[in-house]
Amino acid sequence: MIHRVLAADLPRHVGSRVRLAGWLHRRRELKSVSFLVIRDRSGLAQVVLREPAPYPEETVLQVTGTVVANPQAPGGAELAADPRAAGRPGAAEPAASGATEGPVPSSGTAGPLVEVLAEAVEPPPFDLYRPAVPAALPTILDHAPAALRHPRLRAPFEIAAAGVAGFRAALDGLHFTEVCTPKLVGTATESGANVFGVDYFGRRAFLAQSPQFFKQALVGVFERVYEVGPVFRAEPHDTARHLAQYTSLDAELGFVRDHRDVMAVLREALAGMHAAAAGRAGAALALLGVEVPEVPAEIPAVHFAEAQELIGRHTGEDVRGEMDLAPAHERWLGEWARREHGSEFLFVTGYPMAKRPFYTHPDTGRPEFSRSFDLLFRGLELVTGGERLHRHGDYLAALAARGEDPEAYAGYLAAFAHGMPPHGGFAIGLERWTARLTGAANVRQTTLFPRDLHRLSP
Amino acid sequence: MIHRVLAADLPRHVGSRVRLAGWLHRRRELKSVSFLVIRDRSGLAQVVLREPAPYPEETVLQVTGTVVANPQAPGGAELAADPRAAGRPGAAEPAASGATEGPVPSSGTAGPLVEVLAEAVEPPPFDLYRPAVPAALPTILDHAPAALRHPRLRAPFEIAAAGVAGFRAALDGLHFTEVCTPKLVGTATESGANVFGVDYFGRRAFLAQSPQFFKQALVGVFERVYEVGPVFRAEPHDTARHLAQYTSLDAELGFVRDHRDVMAVLREALAGMHAAAAGRAGAALALLGVEVPEVPAEIPAVHFAEAQELIGRHTGEDVRGEMDLAPAHERWLGEWARREHGSEFLFVTGYPMAKRPFYTHPDTGRPEFSRSFDLLFRGLELVTGGERLHRHGDYLAALAARGEDPEAYAGYLAAFAHGMPPHGGFAIGLERWTARLTGAANVRQTTLFPRDLHRLSP
Repeated sequence: MIHRVLAADLPRHVGSRVRLAGWLHRRRELKSVSFLVIRDRSGLAQVVLREPAPYPEETVLQVTGTVVANPQAPGGAELAADPRAAGRPGAAEPAASGATEGPVPSSGTAGPLVEVLAEAVEPPPFDLYRPAVPAALPTILDHAPAALRHPRLRAPFEIAAAGVAGFRAALDGLHFTEVCTPKLVGTATESGANVFGVDYFGRRAFLAQSPQFFKQALVGVFERVYEVGPVFRAEPHDTARHLAQYTSLDAELGFVRDHRDVMAVLREALAGMHAAAAGRAGAALALLGVEVPEVPAEIPAVHFAEAQELIGRHTGEDVRGEMDLAPAHERWLGEWARREHGSEFLFVTGYPMAKRPFYTHPDTGRPEFSRSFDLLFRGLELVTGGERLHRHGDYLAALAARGEDPEAYAGYLAAFAHGMPPHGGFAIGLERWTARLTGAANVRQTTLFPRDLHRLSP
Repeated sequence: MIHRVLAADLPRHVGSRVRLAGWLHRRRELKSVSFLVIRDRSGLAQVVLREPAPYPEETVLQVTGTVVANPQAPGGAELAADPRAAGRPGAAEPAASGATEGPVPSSGTAGPLVEVLAEAVEPPPFDLYRPAVPAALPTILDHAPAALRHPRLRAPFEIAAAGVAGFRAALDGLHFTEVCTPKLVGTATESGANVFGVDYFGRRAFLAQSPQFFKQALVGVFERVYEVGPVFRAEPHDTARHLAQYTSLDAELGFVRDHRDVMAVLREALAGMHAAAAGRAGAALALLGVEVPEVPAEIPAVHFAEAQELIGRHTGEDVRGEMDLAPAHERWLGEWARREHGSEFLFVTGYPMAKRPFYTHPDTGRPEFSRSFDLLFRGLELVTGGERLHRHGDYLAALAARGEDPEAYAGYLAAFAHGMPPHGGFAIGLERWTARLTGAANVRQTTLFPRDLHRLSP
């Protein structure tokens, strides 16, 4: 019985008999020898076989043989599938150890050199073995289950998984509690538009556009909460940035001084994401040629009004009085932050109240501005956050000022009737973070099975 | 400027001036002294004040004073809000440190002893300060944002958060990759019944009942994947066990020998959950008087047919030929496992194929039985899992045998056309795990804002 060894660990087993299991990534047949490249979750390994190997690419194989040093093979070693060295395969890698356990002595019984675990009955949509991806995005998305096997297409998701782990580790370290909140809600309070309707036992329900109201209410319970989960936006826009479902990394914390305490926590969360990406997804980053930028100990920040003035002074465009930043101006600010502060990140604070949701806390000194922020990552909005209102009376006043009926917000307001501390929070779009980090032009490249105006499968 | 100290850390600061911030949990006024119990995320602390404190419970307060040893106070110390010792409060706990930083010397400027951060304008639905919960479940659920502040009602969610962290840690250690899959799907393939319909840009979509098909397809990409996320069931049953949305801890792994390798990984995941609950949620467990049971190194397992025989022999009921286990028989098996094996857990393997989904792998020797399992935790099904079919031809045959049209499964089958290894997986219901662990009779007690046939808010 021979244990499975992962491709990346092959060089550690030179001279031993081992079993590889994976997909036939690439096959080359010469006159008297076949070269098989086997792909598994760890990488690629070469197998040399002194017989024909008439299997199409993506066939699932296990191969038993002796590990031989070969400077020209990936990692400096290859598997020689030699009948004299063959044992009987069939024993799985110990499932629960996860370790690439070393080889064990054979029982001496010869078995097949190459065993087909599953046939590939259709060719992949494009050659998965080519170093560059020879396909356009629609082809990739239409055939995602096969296409994502391409190492360059899989890599962003390994980085994303590491980033999420880093987000959680940072907030766990700050005594946050992870929560799971409903995605089915009875009222579309945050924004009436862009919401998906659900037939809920004959009633009308909606898919939550964010856990905003729940995470605020839970500040009253846990003080500090985070959630990693799907949010839903019925985005009628067909852009490279918008999806009908994405993964939101949400955090909310109580007993803040103002939005700056929220920004300090966001900085820690981002630093955790970047550290985890570098530490846990090094191979994926190297494959994509991506360097993880440093998150400054203090991320530079400019006030919205100051940002407008900077843009006016440097670009000659007069943007005073505008209530938001145009994408081109966000890009300009991103370049400015890199040039002036050596930072890929820039906080823009104090967005006008007119453009922020009703629960946003105004700036006490300048009530037309808010205690909110966006975080730009390389000139693109990655995070939105801020301090929220916390007094019940302030909510009633804010809704009245906007001509909204407090009755429609009764469930939301209930939490504030029972005493809520000053608090704030933020939401990071995971797919957007991964796209900015890896340089993907379209957020669909960093979403496993994206959903949008046109796409509901696979 | 005086830093915030958490209630649980008060005893470490005897003799120092500190600031507490939290909710007024309980107030008692004597002739010349007021006792305030302040609740924060860490626990409770007592404040002694030589003046009236006319605030209703749940008012959000910060109090500055000197920590004094008092064996009768919770933790052996209390805060004496003494004007001679007062500094100016207002500085927040350093938001991003999370540490309960020590006190710093005052500037000498006197400030208010007690500052109201937010008023409680309505009384809570019941007294949150009573050790036992003086309310029935419907009251608790109707008023969740306030009710969950009760330490006994909050505790299960601290245990759940720890359990999820342990699940991820165990699978991360086994080289699983975390994934995020769509909750909006175009076809209700797994089961036509109990599915929520969504209006998707004028088309019909459905909420995913599980990530089953995605996680299988992703075995082809990552070999080993897990997801923690919401799943949706339009359960028309009003029971203590069923919810319209719950949190599913899903895992799937490739290159398994059979379902036993899946069971071995599940054992590790559960052991991780139990270790993390004990290690990270000790205070919550102690409050509820819950001991975390050991997960045996090898969880006992009985085959379905053997289980039926045991039930028949011991209870006198003849259940042979039945295709499933009745809840009463699951309970009996749970007691049997505790008695015979000293285990709170029991695997029942080999359920009849007739009761398992089409993708279930049959037992090669006895094809009427499956390579699937349920895991009973204290006599209740907690986990379902098994080995899946992996060959494209086997899927076509399985669908044909059930009279299903393969065209309806085209998107699902695509992954298997490209070579999929032998694989299997499982799904743990998080709320159900927490309920079994804490002894909650109703899964709604371990769901933050449950959704069911009748309930869509708060």
